This record gives sequence, C-alpha cells and structure tokens, in this order.
Amino acid sequence: MTPRIVALYSDFGFGDWYVGVMKGVILSVNPQATVIDVVHTIPDHDVSAGSFALAASYSYLPLDAVVVAVVDPGVGTERRIICTETAGRTFLAPDNGLLSGVFLREGHGRIVSVENDEYFLKPVSSTFHGRDIFASVAGHLSMGLMISKLGREVRNVKRFDVPGARLSGGSLDVLIQWVDWFGNLVTNCGEELARELKLIWGRFRITGVEGKSVSIVESYEAVGVGELLAIVGSSGYLEISVREGSAAAVLGFGIWSELRLTKA
Amino acid sequence: MTPRIVALYSDFGFGDWYVGVMKGVILSVNPQATVIDVVHTIPDHDVSAGSFALAASYSYLPLDAVVVAVVDPGVGTERRIICTETAGRTFLAPDNGLLSGVFLREGHGRIVSVENDEYFLKPVSSTFHGRDIFASVAGHLSMGLMISKLGREVRNVKRFDVPGARLSGGSLDVLIQWVDWFGNLVTNCGEELARELKLIWGRFRITGVEGKSVSIVESYEAVGVGELLAIVGSSGYLEISVREGSAAAVLGFGIWSELRLTKA
Amino acid sequence: MTPRIVALYSDFGFGDWYVGVMKGVILSVNPQATVIDVVHTIPDHDVSAGSFALAASYSYLPLDAVVVAVVDPGVGTERRIICTETAGRTFLAPDNGLLSGVFLREGHGRIVSVENDEYFLKPVSSTFHGRDIFASVAGHLSMGLMISKLGREVRNVKRFDVPGARLSGGSLDVLIQWVDWFGNLVTNCGEELARELKLIWGRFRITGVEGKSVSIVESYEAVGVGELLAIVGSSGYLEISVREGSAAAVLGFGIWSELRLTKA
Repeated sequence: MTPRIVALYSDFGFGDWYVGVMKGVILSVNPQATVIDVVHTIPDHDVSAGSFALAASYSYLPLDAVVVAVVDPGVGTERRIICTETAGRTFLAPDNGLLSGVFLREGHGRIVSVENDEYFLKPVSSTFHGRDIFASVAGHLSMGLMISKLGREVRNVKRFDVPGARLSGGSLDVLIQWVDWFGNLVTNCGEELARELKLIWGRFRITGVEGKSVSIVESYEAVGVGELLAIVGSSGYLEISVREGSAAAVLGFGIWSELRLTKA
Repeated sequence: MTPRIVALYSDFGFGDWYVGVMKGVILSVNPQATVIDVVHTIPDHDVSAGSFALAASYSYLPLDAVVVAVVDPGVGTERRIICTETAGRTFLAPDNGLLSGVFLREGHGRIVSVENDEYFLKPVSSTFHGRDIFASVAGHLSMGLMISKLGREVRNVKRFDVPGARLSGGSLDVLIQWVDWFGNLVTNCGEELARELKLIWGRFRITGVEGKSVSIVESYEAVGVGELLAIVGSSGYLEISVREGSAAAVLGFGIWSELRLTKA
Repeated sequence: MTPRIVALYSDFGFGDWYVGVMKGVILSVNPQATVIDVVHTIPDHDVSAGSFALAASYSYLPLDAVVVAVVDPGVGTERRIICTETAGRTFLAPDNGLLSGVFLREGHGRIVSVENDEYFLKPVSSTFHGRDIFASVAGHLSMGLMISKLGREVRNVKRFDVPGARLSGGSLDVLIQWVDWFGNLVTNCGEELARELKLIWGRFRITGVEGKSVSIVESYEAVGVGELLAIVGSSGYLEISVREGSAAAVLGFGIWSELRLTKA
C-alpha cells in the first residue's frame, strides 16, 4: 500500500523539537507514514493567518492526505478538536475557526469531535496537544482509521468569514493576509476583482504612501528591478511586490495592515 | 522491512546545506531510511542545551530509531565519537557530555567508541564529521549494523550532572534550560517540585522583577491574555510563560539565566 | 523499486508554504518519492550564491537523485527552464546560470529545454513555477521519465565563470562566497592554494582589519576559543572563522565582500 501523506501546519516555528516529536509520534504509530511540513511559521496564535495559509495551499496536497493544523491558543481548555473529510482529504484541527478558509472553498462533509482517547498518547499534557493528541490521531488516520471512530458527529463548529476586498466609491480597502519570505504583501483582493482593477484602473495609489503609484501587471519583468508592482500571486490574490525586493520593507506594512487603494 | 527512522539533532541551524548533505549521505548508504529533523537550532556549540533538548524529546521517537546528535565544538580534535543502545534506541554523539540528560534518565548499556573507518565517508574532513562520520555511520546503523562493529567498548565517557532546582530557605533558585519559539522559559524545576510549590506557594515573585507575581496554574486559560503564569510544560519542567505572549520578551531572560523565586 | 530521492534547493526560505506545496505536488505525482530539503535560504534572487550552494553539496546526494534548484528572479518571463543529466544525477533549474558551479566541476551531458506542458501542473501561474513546473516535472522524473520527453535539446545555456582567488604581488584578493549559520566566511580560495599559503605565509592579515592576524590551521583547536583562524572547510575552500564564535560578526563581512589578504 502506498504510504499516506501526513501534512503539518502550525505556529510552532523551527526553534524547538516540537515539530520533530510530532513526527516521532506519528512514525511510532505508523512507521510507513510520509510526513511533510507545509508551514510552521504561522504567526503565533493567529488563527486567521492559519486559516489563510491552509486555504492557500491544501489543494496542492495529495488527495488522501491527512492534514494536521495546530494553531491552538486554547490548548488545555474545553475547546474541541475536530476532524472532517473535505475535498478528498482528512483535516484535523482545533475547533477555533482554523478550517474556515477551507470550508469556505469546499463546504464540508461530516465533522466529528475528537474524543476517543484510545488514539491519544497518554498521559495527555495540558500544553502540547499537538504531540499528545493531534500527532497520535494523525498516525492512526494515516493507517486508515475511520473518522467515525474518533467521536460523535458535531455541527455548529466555529467559523469566521474571511472578508473579501470590495470596491466602493472609487476606492478599494484591502487587508494584508500574509507577508511572505520575499516581503510580498498578499491582499484579500481576489483574482477576478484584480483583473477588473487592471482594466479600469491599470495603476493605483496607496493612501498614505507618498509619491509612488503601483502598476497592476502580468509578470514581474513588466517593471524595473526595485520598482513596486501588483500582480495576482500564486495564492490567487493580488499581491503588492517589489521586483527582486521586499514590499514589506519598502512600504512598512505587515500582516493585517489595512490599505486603501485608489486609481492613480 | 519497515524503514528504520534516523532522527537528527544539531546546532547547524537552517541557513546552509549542512543538514541536507547529512540526509544525502544517509540516503546514499540506505535509500530506504526515513530521516526526520528533531531540532537543529540548539544554541551554537552549547552541549548542555543539546543535552536538555535530547532529554526532553527522545522518548517520543520510535523505538528502534537511530538518534544522531551533533553539537561538536571539538570536531577535528581527539575527542571520541560514541555509540550506545539505550532506551530501545541507538544513540550516536560526540563524547562531550551531549548524552548526559539521556543517560541520567535511562542509564545506559554498552558504549562503543566509533573508530572503524570502513563506515566513514572518505576523505574525512576536519570540520564536518556530521557529514563524513555521523551521517555515514547512521546510514549503516539504520540498515542493521551492530554497534560492536564500530569500535571497542569504552567506559568513562564524559557526563555532566544536570542540576535540579532546589527549595532552600524559602526561595528557589532556578536556571532557564531552554527558551522556546513562543518565548516560554523552561526552568530546571521538575514536575514534582512544581506541584509542591503550587500547593505551598500558589504564586511567586521573581527577584529583580518589579510588580509582577506569577500564578502556578494548570492551564493557560487560568490567567488573562498577556499575563504571566507558570505551568508544568510538555518537557516535564515548570515553564514561565505569558498567555499568548512571550515571557522571554516581557522579562528579558534567556537561556542559562538564573532566577530566584520567592513566595508572593 | 527503491524510491528515487528528490533534493530541493531554493531561495524560498522557511516562512511560507511554498516549499511545502512543492512537496505536495511531487508526492501527488509520485507518492513513493523521498523528498529532502538541501537548502532554502539561498539569499533572495542570488543566482551566484545558489550556484555555489549547489556546487558545494550536490556530490553528497545519492546517485540517481533528481536535483531541483529554484532561484528564479526571471520567473514568468521568457527565460528557459533546463534539465540535464550530469554526474549521475538529474538537474532541473532555470537557465540563468544556477548550474554554473556544477557544470564547472562536472561538465555536462545533454541539456534539454523543459517545454512539454503535459508534465506541468495547470494552470501555470506566472509567479510560482517552483510549484507548477519544477515540482510537477520533478515528480515525473522521480518516476523514471526520460529527460528527452521534456523538450528539445539545447546548447548555449547561460553560464558564468566562478572566479577563483589568485595570488599576485604578495597579496591575495578573495571573495566571500557564503556565510554560514555559525558565521564562518567561505572564501573562493580553493584547497590547493590554501595549502600553499599555509606553507609560504602561515598567517595573514586582512587589509583594513586592525590588529588581527589570522593563522591558517588544520583544526579549530589550534587556536584559543574566540580567536580568528583560517581553515580549509567542508566545502573545499579556505574559510575564515572564529573558534566557537562568528567571524561574520567579529569582522563585519558578508556574502560577496571582497577582502585583500597579505602575509602577516
């Protein structure tokens, strides 16, 4: 049998053994599992950023993957852990809205509350369910465990809306949903609206940013090295970038910055 | 046959190809090996921190794992490399005390000095035994090589004591053994003593830190967001934390800081 | 069949899901692939640094590996992507000189232009060919796809010379080609010349650096902790280091710094 992929998302960073012991626990349960890191640098405790990271990437994971997402400021409290089969994959996450972006794109099938401690690593600590519950359960899921074995079906899971950018009165208010390694600012302006803006505006200004207007382009080479541009990026949203440079550094914006754009 | 897991610990960080070529060498010897990174951000050359990282995590690795630990300021000198079977796993490390924390918890079985260069990658450099010796030997161990083939049995390996915190005269002197990605300060005060403190103190003050007393709690939600707390963390030691924040940033302490705690 | 290793190099860093989705795409094509990260912290868009990283490490990857290198400031432009079988491995990279260091050491066999979109993930974005082309093609290569299926043979690929250090008039001008995690400064002075310098100079001064001369040594222990030294490092070049410290921090040099060395 082909080993089933377990894909990990978290805000655990890369400074500790936390992700490593999750892999140890998964492989202790299922030595045949293939475990990959998707991203561990979701900003600490930022469930909204985690929701965006998941939504931007899950569709590139193999069908059949077990997707484990741990951004869990409520660890050790009564918050539930949920598991669902959605979009051909199995998702395991705290019930804190972390799967909102996935649900928004895919809807969802049956959701269960993860309660059967037969599949947990005991004793369960109060601070690291990633190791003691998520990794252990993921190991079992990767061996074919049916999610119905984990607990009873639930409805009313926590979800938040992911606001889209909207054009109103000649200006567009956008939110920065992610700042990547290169300093690209990923907005919440989707592809369709971005294409419309390209047609009707072509270029825009950012309120409060002096002297710089930004072209909406199809590829980085449309502007000179070091110049600002906007482009529909690989996550399907308009990104504000600097060619071979960092828009975050040049403009001073970060995650969740709110920008107002107007026609240049 | 199930592939045997090789688990890597080092202070090599994540800025270079050093860990990557170790994996390349392991997989060149044993293409079936499953290699996982446990932690590579042990503070540079800090054997004591490495010993703590190993002790806090090895028990979550699969039985049968080959555990390779390289924090090796003595690389290229006459320091030995040792290999031992302990706690169901095979450990490979420089003979500089790096395995002290593991030995303290587990005792140890036979230890051999790694000398048989038949299992080394040649020529052996004087600066990167992680690649030329550790990775190559680990590849062979993951294929079932008996440790007795590596060299003669040795005794008198280097070990240091890992000091525990002790309560004396109404105050507790603790050492910070690790600062994690979230800024949690992991002390050397073990679980048993921590539970005792919770009973007899409930709260404590940190000498030199103005105006803040710290509750010893069972879960993060016992205090408000942004408040200090102390909790037995996932490594089995009392950790000083800020709920959804960084105690390291708030208090200004780092690894090996010494703190005096007194009843609040 | 033994799974074929896919080894990844990029400047994508570790802050996003970019490397993770590349793995997702590779494993979607070939669930049996073993994927390893070699290095993802090549300085952003720095093709020369990437060329050095590849040259310093590829020979430690398994024969038969599929080596994928993405440092690609020209993504979305007309720059080609090339694939070649060299030194027993298959290399996939943009045609921007990234393979120069490998070609310099190994020469190269047939090179093809990667054009057959049957092996791409569609739609192909204009900003992330690492995911949509490189990862997808690598997945197919790891299953045994012949490179001739990817496109027509090409000549005249982009290459740049990697300058070596040269001794002239009693001084040696060197370039820093890499600064590693420990702060070691890896020069472009090769092993042979370094051994010659050791014989004829023994020690050197760095122009502009006051009061410090540097011994060329065989192992770190030849100098005291905290002292400067020079040693032929694991990449085969002279490195300027501080024993158990950071030469980059002490001297203030970075990648591509130019230094003049003279006999002390």
